Amino acid sequence: MQPAQQLTRPTHECGVCGICNHEDAAKLTYFGLYALQHRGQESAGIVSSDGEKVRMHKDMGLVPEVFSEQNLSAIRGQLAIGHVRYSTTGGSTIVNTQPLLVTHKGNTLAVAHNGNLTNSVTLRHELEQKGSIFQTGMDSEIVLHLMARAADRSLDEALATSFTELKGAFSMLLMTRESIIAARDPHGFRPLCLGRLNNGGIIVASESCALDLIGAHYERDIEPGEILVCSGNTMRSIFPWPKQRSSFCIFEQVYFARPDSDIYGSNVYEIRKRMGAILAKECPIDGDFVMPFPDSGNYAAIGYSQASGIPLEFGVIRNHYVGRTFIQPTQSMRDFNVRVKLNPVRSFLMGKRAIIVEDSIIRGTTGKSRVQSLREAGAAEVHMVVSCPPTRHPCYYGIDFPSPKELIATDKSIREIARYLGLDSLHYLSLEGLVEATGKSFQDYCLACYNGDYPITPDLSFQKDAFDQP
Amino acid sequence: MQPAQQLTRPTHECGVCGICNHEDAAKLTYFGLYALQHRGQESAGIVSSDGEKVRMHKDMGLVPEVFSEQNLSAIRGQLAIGHVRYSTTGGSTIVNTQPLLVTHKGNTLAVAHNGNLTNSVTLRHELEQKGSIFQTGMDSEIVLHLMARAADRSLDEALATSFTELKGAFSMLLMTRESIIAARDPHGFRPLCLGRLNNGGIIVASESCALDLIGAHYERDIEPGEILVCSGNTMRSIFPWPKQRSSFCIFEQVYFARPDSDIYGSNVYEIRKRMGAILAKECPIDGDFVMPFPDSGNYAAIGYSQASGIPLEFGVIRNHYVGRTFIQPTQSMRDFNVRVKLNPVRSFLMGKRAIIVEDSIIRGTTGKSRVQSLREAGAAEVHMVVSCPPTRHPCYYGIDFPSPKELIATDKSIREIARYLGLDSLHYLSLEGLVEATGKSFQDYCLACYNGDYPITPDLSFQKDAFDQP
Amino acid sequence: MQPAQQLTRPTHECGVCGICNHEDAAKLTYFGLYALQHRGQESAGIVSSDGEKVRMHKDMGLVPEVFSEQNLSAIRGQLAIGHVRYSTTGGSTIVNTQPLLVTHKGNTLAVAHNGNLTNSVTLRHELEQKGSIFQTGMDSEIVLHLMARAADRSLDEALATSFTELKGAFSMLLMTRESIIAARDPHGFRPLCLGRLNNGGIIVASESCALDLIGAHYERDIEPGEILVCSGNTMRSIFPWPKQRSSFCIFEQVYFARPDSDIYGSNVYEIRKRMGAILAKECPIDGDFVMPFPDSGNYAAIGYSQASGIPLEFGVIRNHYVGRTFIQPTQSMRDFNVRVKLNPVRSFLMGKRAIIVEDSIIRGTTGKSRVQSLREAGAAEVHMVVSCPPTRHPCYYGIDFPSPKELIATDKSIREIARYLGLDSLHYLSLEGLVEATGKSFQDYCLACYNGDYPITPDLSFQKDAFDQP
Amino acid sequence: MQPAQQLTRPTHECGVCGICNHEDAAKLTYFGLYALQHRGQESAGIVSSDGEKVRMHKDMGLVPEVFSEQNLSAIRGQLAIGHVRYSTTGGSTIVNTQPLLVTHKGNTLAVAHNGNLTNSVTLRHELEQKGSIFQTGMDSEIVLHLMARAADRSLDEALATSFTELKGAFSMLLMTRESIIAARDPHGFRPLCLGRLNNGGIIVASESCALDLIGAHYERDIEPGEILVCSGNTMRSIFPWPKQRSSFCIFEQVYFARPDSDIYGSNVYEIRKRMGAILAKECPIDGDFVMPFPDSGNYAAIGYSQASGIPLEFGVIRNHYVGRTFIQPTQSMRDFNVRVKLNPVRSFLMGKRAIIVEDSIIRGTTGKSRVQSLREAGAAEVHMVVSCPPTRHPCYYGIDFPSPKELIATDKSIREIARYLGLDSLHYLSLEGLVEATGKSFQDYCLACYNGDYPITPDLSFQKDAFDQP
Repeated sequence: MQPAQQLTRPTHECGVCGICNHEDAAKLTYFGLYALQHRGQESAGIVSSDGEKVRMHKDMGLVPEVFSEQNLSAIRGQLAIGHVRYSTTGGSTIVNTQPLLVTHKGNTLAVAHNGNLTNSVTLRHELEQKGSIFQTGMDSEIVLHLMARAADRSLDEALATSFTELKGAFSMLLMTRESIIAARDPHGFRPLCLGRLNNGGIIVASESCALDLIGAHYERDIEPGEILVCSGNTMRSIFPWPKQRSSFCIFEQVYFARPDSDIYGSNVYEIRKRMGAILAKECPIDGDFVMPFPDSGNYAAIGYSQASGIPLEFGVIRNHYVGRTFIQPTQSMRDFNVRVKLNPVRSFLMGKRAIIVEDSIIRGTTGKSRVQSLREAGAAEVHMVVSCPPTRHPCYYGIDFPSPKELIATDKSIREIARYLGLDSLHYLSLEGLVEATGKSFQDYCLACYNGDYPITPDLSFQKDAFDQP
Repeated sequence: MQPAQQLTRPTHECGVCGICNHEDAAKLTYFGLYALQHRGQESAGIVSSDGEKVRMHKDMGLVPEVFSEQNLSAIRGQLAIGHVRYSTTGGSTIVNTQPLLVTHKGNTLAVAHNGNLTNSVTLRHELEQKGSIFQTGMDSEIVLHLMARAADRSLDEALATSFTELKGAFSMLLMTRESIIAARDPHGFRPLCLGRLNNGGIIVASESCALDLIGAHYERDIEPGEILVCSGNTMRSIFPWPKQRSSFCIFEQVYFARPDSDIYGSNVYEIRKRMGAILAKECPIDGDFVMPFPDSGNYAAIGYSQASGIPLEFGVIRNHYVGRTFIQPTQSMRDFNVRVKLNPVRSFLMGKRAIIVEDSIIRGTTGKSRVQSLREAGAAEVHMVVSCPPTRHPCYYGIDFPSPKELIATDKSIREIARYLGLDSLHYLSLEGLVEATGKSFQDYCLACYNGDYPITPDLSFQKDAFDQP
Repeated sequence: MQPAQQLTRPTHECGVCGICNHEDAAKLTYFGLYALQHRGQESAGIVSSDGEKVRMHKDMGLVPEVFSEQNLSAIRGQLAIGHVRYSTTGGSTIVNTQPLLVTHKGNTLAVAHNGNLTNSVTLRHELEQKGSIFQTGMDSEIVLHLMARAADRSLDEALATSFTELKGAFSMLLMTRESIIAARDPHGFRPLCLGRLNNGGIIVASESCALDLIGAHYERDIEPGEILVCSGNTMRSIFPWPKQRSSFCIFEQVYFARPDSDIYGSNVYEIRKRMGAILAKECPIDGDFVMPFPDSGNYAAIGYSQASGIPLEFGVIRNHYVGRTFIQPTQSMRDFNVRVKLNPVRSFLMGKRAIIVEDSIIRGTTGKSRVQSLREAGAAEVHMVVSCPPTRHPCYYGIDFPSPKELIATDKSIREIARYLGLDSLHYLSLEGLVEATGKSFQDYCLACYNGDYPITPDLSFQKDAFDQP
Repeated sequence: MQPAQQLTRPTHECGVCGICNHEDAAKLTYFGLYALQHRGQESAGIVSSDGEKVRMHKDMGLVPEVFSEQNLSAIRGQLAIGHVRYSTTGGSTIVNTQPLLVTHKGNTLAVAHNGNLTNSVTLRHELEQKGSIFQTGMDSEIVLHLMARAADRSLDEALATSFTELKGAFSMLLMTRESIIAARDPHGFRPLCLGRLNNGGIIVASESCALDLIGAHYERDIEPGEILVCSGNTMRSIFPWPKQRSSFCIFEQVYFARPDSDIYGSNVYEIRKRMGAILAKECPIDGDFVMPFPDSGNYAAIGYSQASGIPLEFGVIRNHYVGRTFIQPTQSMRDFNVRVKLNPVRSFLMGKRAIIVEDSIIRGTTGKSRVQSLREAGAAEVHMVVSCPPTRHPCYYGIDFPSPKELIATDKSIREIARYLGLDSLHYLSLEGLVEATGKSFQDYCLACYNGDYPITPDLSFQKDAFDQP
């Protein structure tokens, strides 16, 4: 279980997928999770219902490690929801895997959650006052307690009552024996989209790439503030919150979402290319070629190259057979950790001026080694352009950044970062340029990790640290 | 999770061990569980407390598979409780591992339980009416909800209030941040004993063999109806139930407990020898030698041999290197499944009259093959004596027998069983002989599996089957 | 063991690396093999010598799977040679791993071989007439028998005598207790290069990328027809063959070698870009963008884009977390096998005209699915250009192509292939264009797989099929 | 590979099994090896022939680990021979697994060997002078070279010529494409027996327990000095050596063979019981009970108990669920290593006088801990009787004893050993008593490990240490 202090801080990014009304619901959910694997590699789980029994399988590991034909075929039924969870250091244990499943007065309820509640400590305290006991450190468990306490009401009332208690970011799937419920917080921090299966059934997933793999047709995004109840091939929507402006997470488009997904109505690949193109205008550099380090910055690099006319090249090649080597290098093998994965093309690099396109600089340690490996391979100049502004603020809505003191941009100027990385020059995309690339406006986004402007003030108090688990 | 119907029926046998006030609490608990492995091979878990933080590690598997030096050293603290769980077919999943750990108003509470509650359905229903939601199919979770609802009272009051709600069999360990609590139901169905570590610390365990391995000194059994609260090196007892006669499970002495353990005040090895000796008087047979099938009936066989003067021999030898073979035998290899594990000594058996001593006959299928393998190796006669009466009734207090229709003695006479097994003669120890062997009286024991006389009427109603999990 | 018929046919491609005079010889060899992993994924092995004892470790598996710090540190000494072997279907067993190690009159000799002997059947027959017995199906074993029979002569004479018996392709490393020997056949079919370690020691490896990873300095290629004997930091060369024209394998530059390697004096990355550029001139196409399927054709695609001015794009994205999924798709999931690994960027592709650059078309089955997946994602036109001519003839010098009847170009015209693949148009690079891209002349290369012109006539007779092994 | 010095010294004990003329030859060989697993746990292998092709599978590991239904069904044919190899420290590698398989002039020959040649250095030297090269460190490879050099003669002549070159201990199986050959050295050091399958086919195996598992009928032992050639259901014998007295290894009956096997015409179980009975007469002790430590000395303990009238008891119980624990005990847990596997029955032992029966004392370290654990459990006196004389001399015929300086009896008197072990008294069976127990005479046995009287003088010179392998 996680330390309670993490309950009030940004913790993890996850992915969810649910299927309604398909006889292979668990298998389709499996493939949905498979496509969403980039959103969480720590654990995976699926809960199904055949209308009578609810069945679950979850475990630590990647989606293909957790599931087999055998255990998938055992979780029968027309309904299923699934979850992948991101690997955070330390607190990862089987207890904190999702979906969570409970029973109450003969009813079962399962939940799979992507996001982070900002009032979880307060809610938890209130629930405990009323007699609830908690078995996990996950804020997602709160929803189950709220729903159980509203069990006497109609489902729609229970949902409205429970969800309006929550603050923060949640793209969440619930499952009862007969229905799938998709809920997205009124700010719409995290993406969540809706599609149709070939047989008329319904799919809800974090990103559209899950629909593409399954062969489902994208219909629309679940709207911010919408609660969608699916049963059979029919659905109905509840909008229990007053209308408010959205706060889409821009980091999904910069880094997190898969490039072949459309989120918030736009294609990620195209947006990243535009970031590179705007970067080329904001930061023109006199170089011989543009290159990404595979595979960060690939699409912005294309955009930069096309806008600047400077050719795109692969100055370093990824080693395809790179299993992890646990053998320590000898003393004379410098920059080994970079070279073992990314092989500089020495003959090509010799004497050339490189423009590296990166999608982010977090701690800077990896970048430092990478730059040095290019220099040692003979590059004459090494410049770097980054397709977003410096990341300086923590996220309270579901992205697990390193702590501020580990972020290199927190207390270093751009010039200092350039010197630390060993660069001839370093340039970041402006916040204006970033927003321009998305085709939307400042009003539509949460930009807190860049500008510190938080749409919801997080509840930073926390209770005595009750749980821990190695 | 387990089907709810199993919540009202006998489910499993388990083992528990707790350590109070030793800096290596988790490691000592590990070794205690290691000694108790025969009580449960499905999963293992340990929760520890250092007075501030509570840490847990549990997983499916044998004790040495679940724990490593690394994960053991991470569950730090002076307090620890642990649990091993028996492998039941089907419903075994990580969700149902123990200890269970919850948090409530900043307090943590863990539970490890050996036994079976007979009023779990009723209690669960009542708790759900008050808003509790359940995350597992285990009756042990009920205790945590009861304790949480009594959280405003003193610890002793909360314990008394909560435990007197429970009916059935429980040898249970609880752990708070500062204390270990050991509770044994007023009938004392399951064993639970108390010892002292060399450093003055306290150990509580299902059987004394756990104390022997650790090098602790046995002090006494936890009494039926006693709740013992341990903190540091001190302890206090609560007796919240009215005094009543005990109902020790006799099957522990017949079969389940380890022969080097002392339970209910007597040594299991000696009692099993006496069963064999009394059997020799009740059922004298004219045979050439007495033999057990390794390792069922070893000790009763010694007793039978010594009392009858007929020599003990090892007519079949266990294959020590028997890894499981998954290769199917060829058609001509009859009785393969017996011979691959137990090798008849053909030259010795040829023409001899064998008296087999068994500790029980459950389904009879294994016995049938074994008898046949002796005949094919040349035995002239094969007689069998069993060191207990025929097992005919289900257990509602924590032992997972096959269903009555699978028990061979349910609808077959002894003569019919003998014919089925291919024996020249078959004899069971009488119930009187069995009780005589223990040195105690009929009043002290639960003998329900033999005579159907249940000390507590089980609540056999059950709610709609809510949970299932592959 | 392999069927004898395979002894006379092209079998496998491999990689070799040897270190002379470095105290961490085995560890440096390990990293050399790690860089050469693309040349063989079936098995890996290293033999070392400390001047007195010879030690070996080899096994099936990838380099990091076969070796650990522990077993690497056990193969001590200043000398080491290693080998990676390509995975061929069927005949892969531990017996056929390399290096091979024998002892003869107190001397030890090890061999690691990349290539294929064309007179192995004849030589094997002659040796058996003289009393040799063979323990493997590998032609490399012949060298050891020849060397043993010449053991009375000086090392140089023995090498000259033995190696001039061999016909075919061999880039081979031998190791005695005191020396490393590198031999390259007089045609120089396979690459082999020489470098210096920082401490003055010597490295010989199949490709220069092995030197780059270790931090060694490239000196020169081992010349065709050269036998280099290394001892301590000194070396001497023997040229036992008459001078003849070289027959470098062009397929190494088209496909097999790593792009960051320099082979035959040129950088593979640059040559592949030139192939693309020449292709753009030979086959101009009116498309919206150029794209490779990751990662075949990456570098030729860059060349094609730069020469044509048509932008390079990544129309499909590789799934980075793609573990293998063994779950079968449902019926409605068409083109699943492509999409699960390579995700088409639907929003980008819609309505566009794609020019795919491939480095080869072997059977065509993969290509067919890939083209179809682009069409289903909405591409308006799909054209393909291939950066080499159609592959139509088997290789007898160490590359394991599918049999001719499996090669799609053997009996299909280009138009027919295009139709089979579902393309709007298909274009191959001309043989002239291919050779032009290398910067060398027709005289320098073996082009047999494209034009059927074999530098050495292979001995296609074969003996009764003696060996087989599952 | 093994150091050459080990080539001239006792190395290992092994087991062999061969099947002639059964369509499931490999599978029956598998089960034969499974029964012989006690003779070798390091590696296992089987070679088969269907009359045309020869197939092999072998690997490090126990028999059930090495083979699967899949790989077993692949090694098709009516003929098969198999081998299990004992785990020696250090030199165990895949290269030294058996069977060995070679090809020569289109013929194949496989060998599986139990024993040790005493003139291997000389033979190897002579063969190398004639051009043979060796790929393993095993003396068994010599046979293959000798057979290859005699390939022009008839099979019987080649066998006679080759085998009469060998000195030392060999119970060996050869396989050609059409026949199985069983050869036992003229002293008959190692056992080897012959049986018939139900279908008329032939089985040859190290011990009769392999026949019992398969359901084959024991016919007779292969005679010392006999070479048996089996083809189809027929066999013929060659006796190329002059008749001489046998030198059966007595250690097979004392310790090594399985108790349910008959070897040298007698049942091992019965002989071991007689050893115990004679021990009871030679060394009467006034004790309360007789006990073995499971499972060394079980059968001699029965014999001692029956002859002395002192009851047999199980004072210590083996932990059945003992997986290996890698967790270090805490400081206060003394004698942990004994207790974790063997649990003293404290209540039984208290105040009693124990007579332990052991089958051997090698180093004495284990015994010391065991005795101490009995004392700490409360035993009043601890006496030990050993069912053989002190082991003082190395074996050159296939048993791998520790070196003499590690044998406790080499330089300690019996009184000193008793003091070292912490015993009240210690007694060994006399050599006369041991031979008497076998029912044979001194003339029939090799007793060298007890009396130093070697039937064949070993060739202790050795060549430069050529091979080693971690």
